[in-house]
Amino acid sequence: MDVTPLPILQQRRARLSDCCAEPVLLWSGAPVARNFAANCYPFRASSHFLYLAGLPIMNAVFALAAGRSILYWDEASPEDDLWHGPTPTRWDLARSAGIDEAYPLSALEQWQDQAFATLPAPDLLTQQRQRDLAGPAVPGMAQRHQILAAAMMRLRLQQDEFSLAQIRTAAAVTVQAHQAGMRATLRSHTEAEVRSAIEQVFISHNLVPAYGSIVTVHGEVLHNPHYHHPLQAGDLLLVDAGAETTLGWAADVTRTWPVSGTFSPTQREIYQVVLAAHDACIEAIAPGVEYEAIHRLALKVLAAGLVDLKILRGDPESLVDQEIPSYFFPHGVGHLLGLDVHDMEDLGDLAGYAPGRQRSQRPGFRYLRLHRPLQENMVVTVEPGFYQIPALLGSARQRGESAICWDQLDKFRDVRGIRIEDDVWVSPQGPVVLTAALASRPESVEAQLKS
Amino acid sequence: MDVTPLPILQQRRARLSDCCAEPVLLWSGAPVARNFAANCYPFRASSHFLYLAGLPIMNAVFALAAGRSILYWDEASPEDDLWHGPTPTRWDLARSAGIDEAYPLSALEQWQDQAFATLPAPDLLTQQRQRDLAGPAVPGMAQRHQILAAAMMRLRLQQDEFSLAQIRTAAAVTVQAHQAGMRATLRSHTEAEVRSAIEQVFISHNLVPAYGSIVTVHGEVLHNPHYHHPLQAGDLLLVDAGAETTLGWAADVTRTWPVSGTFSPTQREIYQVVLAAHDACIEAIAPGVEYEAIHRLALKVLAAGLVDLKILRGDPESLVDQEIPSYFFPHGVGHLLGLDVHDMEDLGDLAGYAPGRQRSQRPGFRYLRLHRPLQENMVVTVEPGFYQIPALLGSARQRGESAICWDQLDKFRDVRGIRIEDDVWVSPQGPVVLTAALASRPESVEAQLKS
Repeated sequence: MDVTPLPILQQRRARLSDCCAEPVLLWSGAPVARNFAANCYPFRASSHFLYLAGLPIMNAVFALAAGRSILYWDEASPEDDLWHGPTPTRWDLARSAGIDEAYPLSALEQWQDQAFATLPAPDLLTQQRQRDLAGPAVPGMAQRHQILAAAMMRLRLQQDEFSLAQIRTAAAVTVQAHQAGMRATLRSHTEAEVRSAIEQVFISHNLVPAYGSIVTVHGEVLHNPHYHHPLQAGDLLLVDAGAETTLGWAADVTRTWPVSGTFSPTQREIYQVVLAAHDACIEAIAPGVEYEAIHRLALKVLAAGLVDLKILRGDPESLVDQEIPSYFFPHGVGHLLGLDVHDMEDLGDLAGYAPGRQRSQRPGFRYLRLHRPLQENMVVTVEPGFYQIPALLGSARQRGESAICWDQLDKFRDVRGIRIEDDVWVSPQGPVVLTAALASRPESVEAQLKS
Repeated sequence: MDVTPLPILQQRRARLSDCCAEPVLLWSGAPVARNFAANCYPFRASSHFLYLAGLPIMNAVFALAAGRSILYWDEASPEDDLWHGPTPTRWDLARSAGIDEAYPLSALEQWQDQAFATLPAPDLLTQQRQRDLAGPAVPGMAQRHQILAAAMMRLRLQQDEFSLAQIRTAAAVTVQAHQAGMRATLRSHTEAEVRSAIEQVFISHNLVPAYGSIVTVHGEVLHNPHYHHPLQAGDLLLVDAGAETTLGWAADVTRTWPVSGTFSPTQREIYQVVLAAHDACIEAIAPGVEYEAIHRLALKVLAAGLVDLKILRGDPESLVDQEIPSYFFPHGVGHLLGLDVHDMEDLGDLAGYAPGRQRSQRPGFRYLRLHRPLQENMVVTVEPGFYQIPALLGSARQRGESAICWDQLDKFRDVRGIRIEDDVWVSPQGPVVLTAALASRPESVEAQLKS
């Protein structure tokens, strides 16, 4: 089993102990039934547990109390051994993760109605177990959880040496997977066939998808979960797929390519606009820069490009102020990346938004997931796009929105959706694109398609 | 979206109405968070819902009351359309599945504390919703659920024309997937690489695995979920993998092959014994035959084969009575197959065991999942195996179990686990192997490996 190196775990635990005086208990979670109890979805441990315990195991609790680390976990029964093979002992596990003490789960009862902090595991069964232990009678429980959430968030915002290496591993396999998808496209007939070439690479490296892959000729549907469409000459294929390592670290990459092997002139023109926004945003990334400014830059470069293509009329800055580019780019330019593909989204906007900031109601900014100054060793995505979404453009067209040259836009109807997304490490020296090995210029993408 | 044909749905609904006088409400279930709420496992609707409603949709309730069918489902919001694309209207969906009435989920409140029957969906959130609606104050609720469970079970035990066609589809893709796995083995270095070749075939057909694939050089671990081992000359690779159709119907197939391309003499000898049991069991399948007799036959043929190989000493029948073969074959010879890979296991042993029958405590019979007379149009698996499981054999060896020739067994130590599994339709004319296109004789397997 892959295990996080001990010095890294010790450092993370020490840092958490420094900001969180109260005992901390984190549950890894329980496997979840798919159609019946014995047929579960592939287990994924809670990210907070993975971060501190470093072990991708189910039905475990990691505690940090008075500077000691404790593992609660039940060893397998002899019947389990028959079906699931020999498993490590509790002490083997604890030792492999530098944990000081180890007990069966029944020993958790010592925490019954005691003061401790926890964060909800993703699955409802574990959440119930957490509530059962953290009795509502104990005063200040909710506040303790908030203090822990804030402490974990501050830790996880900045990647350490090992988590950066893990994200690099996920990124490297993801690059290979997209390359395999590109190479498979010319001989494929459906979205599903290209998807199979991509996910085969994840599986052959014994990794899993960090999220439901998007492989679609309808890129205008932002989270499209369907793969049944045939590939037709003239289609663009939008692929948003990323691998996750055994220890839970994610990559998140999007490319858009022509199924015929060659962009049409209109597709190439829009693609260059999106790429210009992508490149400008990455170049602007540095510690201290407001991520919202990166998002605003994406909107402005898109606006300028669409003005050049005579799809929009007006001054780019004021088009942004009028919310015009968000008709074509309604989502945020990116988000935190780490153990979760939208890192720490289980904590709501706590990680994404600096203290005191809230989601804007403005169309161009409401879906922005990250709104705080960039810090050294954050990893973020940069993913501008251009989409013709009927639900958004239809009403603008009916209203006769005058900033959009509708006749000119009609010439670009073979561009339903384009997105270009890379994963960027905010290094002390500036932006480092962890997924730079994947072609993004149109001519390099075309070359990869034909390779 | 794939939809079950209307005449089939009408027939299933009419048959259920005939056995269940009270109103029936079935929930499809809710998507389940993986690491945060927006990152869910791929949704799988409850099998009972799929059977009757015929629609693979989430957050829906299908009702059958007084001969009328009703769909409760909330249409997507405009914001949903932005992220997930245009979706059908409630009425489009209802019409596509021949449903008479359609309402939003809020209309479910008319059932609050009313008398109706339901079966628990797999996910806990939906189970809570079911409990909230089916108030404990209503007398006879538990009994109503039992009557519905028995009625659904009787219906689903025997496949109809459409479900058989669906299982055939799953079986055909599964055969292709195993063939791809065999062809990939000689150039693969790890279990994960072979698995990737297998699951690529599922994904390219836009199907999903019906259960966690087993692809292991440690076949002695019955439900082995690991794929990291290297393939080493002399290893046998045990592959248990099956596809599931969009509407939920499963295949379940196992083959075991030598990673070098050629069985060793000892591997070939044991393989032939398992294959003899497999063939004998399939031949014995017919309507009216007790499935336990098939299991007993597997034990007996295995015993006879191991006596021939001088691994066991004694008379095969009495070896079975002494529980000797179950040291090498501790699981059941198969199970029901349908919408669930262990069909209707969510109902416990209700489907698997005829009324009045219970699990035996005998080692050779306790894991048998099916113990009732076979009926026309059942689909069952047949999956004898031979394993050297340290946890089982160790104690027998220490005791010096005299029916086992330990010195002779030591010569077969390159056989850790072999299983051969096919899916069999109990047709009125006798057994039809739905997965017969996949090589099972050792020489055909070897030819496939080298193809």
